[in-house]
Amino acid sequence: MNAKYAELKERLGEIQDLRGATSLLAWDQQVMMPGNAGPVRAEQLGTMERVAHERFTSPELGRLLDELESDAASQPYDSDEASLVRVVREDYEKARRVPADLRAEIARAGANALPVWIEARQSSDFKLFLPALRKNVELSKRYVECFDSGRPVYDVLLDDYERGMTTAEVKAVFDELKRELPPLIAQMAEHASEDEFMSGPFPIDKQHEVSLDVIRRFGFSEEGWRLDRSVHPFCSGTATTDIRLTSRYSETDLTSLFSAMHECGHGLYENGVDAALERTPLASGCSLGLHESQSRMWENLVGRSRPFWRFFYPKVQAALPALANVEEEDFYRAINKIKPSLIRVDADEVTYNMHIILRFELEQEIVNERIDLAELPEAWDAKMKGYLDVDVPDARRGVLQDIHWSGASFGYFPTYSLGNVMSVQIWERVREAMPDLDAQIEAGEFGELREWLRENLHRHGRKFPPKETLERVAGGPIDPAPYVRYLRSKVDDLAGVAT
Amino acid sequence: MNAKYAELKERLGEIQDLRGATSLLAWDQQVMMPGNAGPVRAEQLGTMERVAHERFTSPELGRLLDELESDAASQPYDSDEASLVRVVREDYEKARRVPADLRAEIARAGANALPVWIEARQSSDFKLFLPALRKNVELSKRYVECFDSGRPVYDVLLDDYERGMTTAEVKAVFDELKRELPPLIAQMAEHASEDEFMSGPFPIDKQHEVSLDVIRRFGFSEEGWRLDRSVHPFCSGTATTDIRLTSRYSETDLTSLFSAMHECGHGLYENGVDAALERTPLASGCSLGLHESQSRMWENLVGRSRPFWRFFYPKVQAALPALANVEEEDFYRAINKIKPSLIRVDADEVTYNMHIILRFELEQEIVNERIDLAELPEAWDAKMKGYLDVDVPDARRGVLQDIHWSGASFGYFPTYSLGNVMSVQIWERVREAMPDLDAQIEAGEFGELREWLRENLHRHGRKFPPKETLERVAGGPIDPAPYVRYLRSKVDDLAGVAT
Repeated sequence: MNAKYAELKERLGEIQDLRGATSLLAWDQQVMMPGNAGPVRAEQLGTMERVAHERFTSPELGRLLDELESDAASQPYDSDEASLVRVVREDYEKARRVPADLRAEIARAGANALPVWIEARQSSDFKLFLPALRKNVELSKRYVECFDSGRPVYDVLLDDYERGMTTAEVKAVFDELKRELPPLIAQMAEHASEDEFMSGPFPIDKQHEVSLDVIRRFGFSEEGWRLDRSVHPFCSGTATTDIRLTSRYSETDLTSLFSAMHECGHGLYENGVDAALERTPLASGCSLGLHESQSRMWENLVGRSRPFWRFFYPKVQAALPALANVEEEDFYRAINKIKPSLIRVDADEVTYNMHIILRFELEQEIVNERIDLAELPEAWDAKMKGYLDVDVPDARRGVLQDIHWSGASFGYFPTYSLGNVMSVQIWERVREAMPDLDAQIEAGEFGELREWLRENLHRHGRKFPPKETLERVAGGPIDPAPYVRYLRSKVDDLAGVAT
Repeated sequence: MNAKYAELKERLGEIQDLRGATSLLAWDQQVMMPGNAGPVRAEQLGTMERVAHERFTSPELGRLLDELESDAASQPYDSDEASLVRVVREDYEKARRVPADLRAEIARAGANALPVWIEARQSSDFKLFLPALRKNVELSKRYVECFDSGRPVYDVLLDDYERGMTTAEVKAVFDELKRELPPLIAQMAEHASEDEFMSGPFPIDKQHEVSLDVIRRFGFSEEGWRLDRSVHPFCSGTATTDIRLTSRYSETDLTSLFSAMHECGHGLYENGVDAALERTPLASGCSLGLHESQSRMWENLVGRSRPFWRFFYPKVQAALPALANVEEEDFYRAINKIKPSLIRVDADEVTYNMHIILRFELEQEIVNERIDLAELPEAWDAKMKGYLDVDVPDARRGVLQDIHWSGASFGYFPTYSLGNVMSVQIWERVREAMPDLDAQIEAGEFGELREWLRENLHRHGRKFPPKETLERVAGGPIDPAPYVRYLRSKVDDLAGVAT
């Protein structure tokens, strides 16, 4: 067992190294790369994807897994050894259905579509983006066909982001949100407060300093991360010891602060994976939904809470003179204003989910070819009107606002709201374990919270399936009730204070 | 021919993509990477090196070359096709002698030695660096043994940086410099001028702006490059369209300016390679010596010339108030002060070569095991005393000052002085072609110079061997006479002005 297992780890380590390099190429493309390098970068990303895929799907790796499986079964289920063999077998069976050429083409197409999306968004020109989108949809179709499974198309795509979850299961959760949230949104409509002070000006270097301050307090080791700027905020990296956060800044709002907290939440998850899993495919968050449970927890359950701002508001006021004469309570209500708006990433906690449901529904139309892609802007705008009563003025603030479709990431969006739902399920366990949680946050102490999350969630990485991982940390299957309870209580509080 | 040739280009393109990713990993390590990522980065670099090497030395590539060679011979010698097959055959025969494991180990050892060197240099502690150095020397010995050639050890190492040149040929050039330069140094000793104004303070952000200004004027397309900071300035990148320059800044000197010009010179060479060669092993400078001929040309022949400062000095004065009351002539003499000093990269044009000769001689001692590595600092200090009459106060300003040995780059140093020599040979051809060169530089016009270099040198990339490439651009073999003439005339001028 030992020599074979060592060989498996060595092979997987090399593949993980290739993936780390790929991740750096992709990070660099969005954060550092000179524009002229775009076409070669697309080739580089395609090649890296192909080489890693070829190595991962090699018959030798399959034979190694065959030889190791009976031994691994005799190890404790939750041991690193048994988990690695089990998860890699599942990854392997999925991956070997997909030709390396297709993998490379998807990577190349995504890299080539990125600058096109950026330009189309800037000029609000959906037609400019349409050919790239068509290409991505066609590649996704070819990808789904590899599985020949009889499963719904969207199930196959969703599985890459939230393994083991079906479209029907997502729909059940979202149906409850669709029922419960609109009354909350309506309830808040009559409490719209004035908050002109939220348009700044907020000097960008100060916003950056405040963001760094938050990230340090949430608890990164100083040599483990960096924060840069990009068109669309994200978190990536090349290892659990190398976390790359990005944010974006505008002088006229403070969304950068919440982006920083959000991406920091992702980063803490990656960084918290057990060091023994480094350079294996287990060294990453378990699923995108669970990842979002962490980013949305730090952004919203911590970052939009009263205790947090009782601690942090004086610091932000000191950094940003535009807030000097704004009361803490007014600021708190401003960052929690619940009001339909155009942009998903800037949306409040309640309406946010309607943006996701819109995308979840449109994506099913798209991948099942029930919509002509040229008509996507109209479909988008109609749903925005239907769900949020918002008129979309242009494609930049409508169908072109998100980066995901430029990378053919169909099936990714639902994980944001699944993460919202799971975040409160986990938060309730945190509250049970830390009765003085609010007091700690109010004192600027985040260490115990972070370590609880590491111990109960982060350290496992991908050892267990998402559903089992959620069971372990939250004590039950996905359930929107706690999240709806949380939102209702927040709305009641805000409405109460406002009247 | 066409299908086979297309297959060759596709295989080489993939290998070049892997090398581009490797280059990004190495750039990132020095410029961006959080410190904790060091150990994993070393594994990543080792793996990338191994995978690229395995692909390049595959029997399939050898067979393709066999099949293409007779066809290629019927193409014009200087066609891209014939050149690619010819150069790749030579690269292939060299590479397949080296096991992929050794390649990976050398890359890993270098990546692991880098932070050790940085710390040892900072604390001036040679003993701290010694184990990494021993490891690198041992790996270099194993590398040389792969060739089993009966050639001198140093010849084998040198060949990786200056293909086709022997230690004896280098020595012949350096012997002439050793004879001709000391009298020039002695001549200037009596003309040491006061230049306290050269210690600033020069605000770092202003230095950075001035550096960017120079690089733009020298002529990069704005979307083709970036300039960052690193411990040791360098130029790298992932493609001819993606040039990464680095510099370093100190408030108390202006070396950053000359670093920027130097690295820009390297970058213009890489960027100037014919676009048709992109994603092939020909898409790079021909040799390190020729590379240095370009960096040293922009740094010294342009950047330390009177016409350049007649144009640029008012701009620098405007940016750096510490120079407000300094006359142009005093500034010109200060940046051309010829005086023995401790640090190679800060040395003047004349004494610089003595730093190189010292390293060239020590490296031969090292790789031929004629010196106990523990005694290297003493040997270094003795040579500094002998060649430059300088007392070395500590290892930081002595044996530990350069990055190269942390990456086992033995044989690299001589190319700096070879570049100096070649730069003036090429410069004499430029002067013949552009009689009004000084007037153009004085007017801030660098376009014709840059295009001449592109046309006569840069665009060829690695199509021809270094000696042939030098013949093409300079009209003859390497010859130190023009360089010595240039230095003597500069010294006479400076001495004349000073008396």
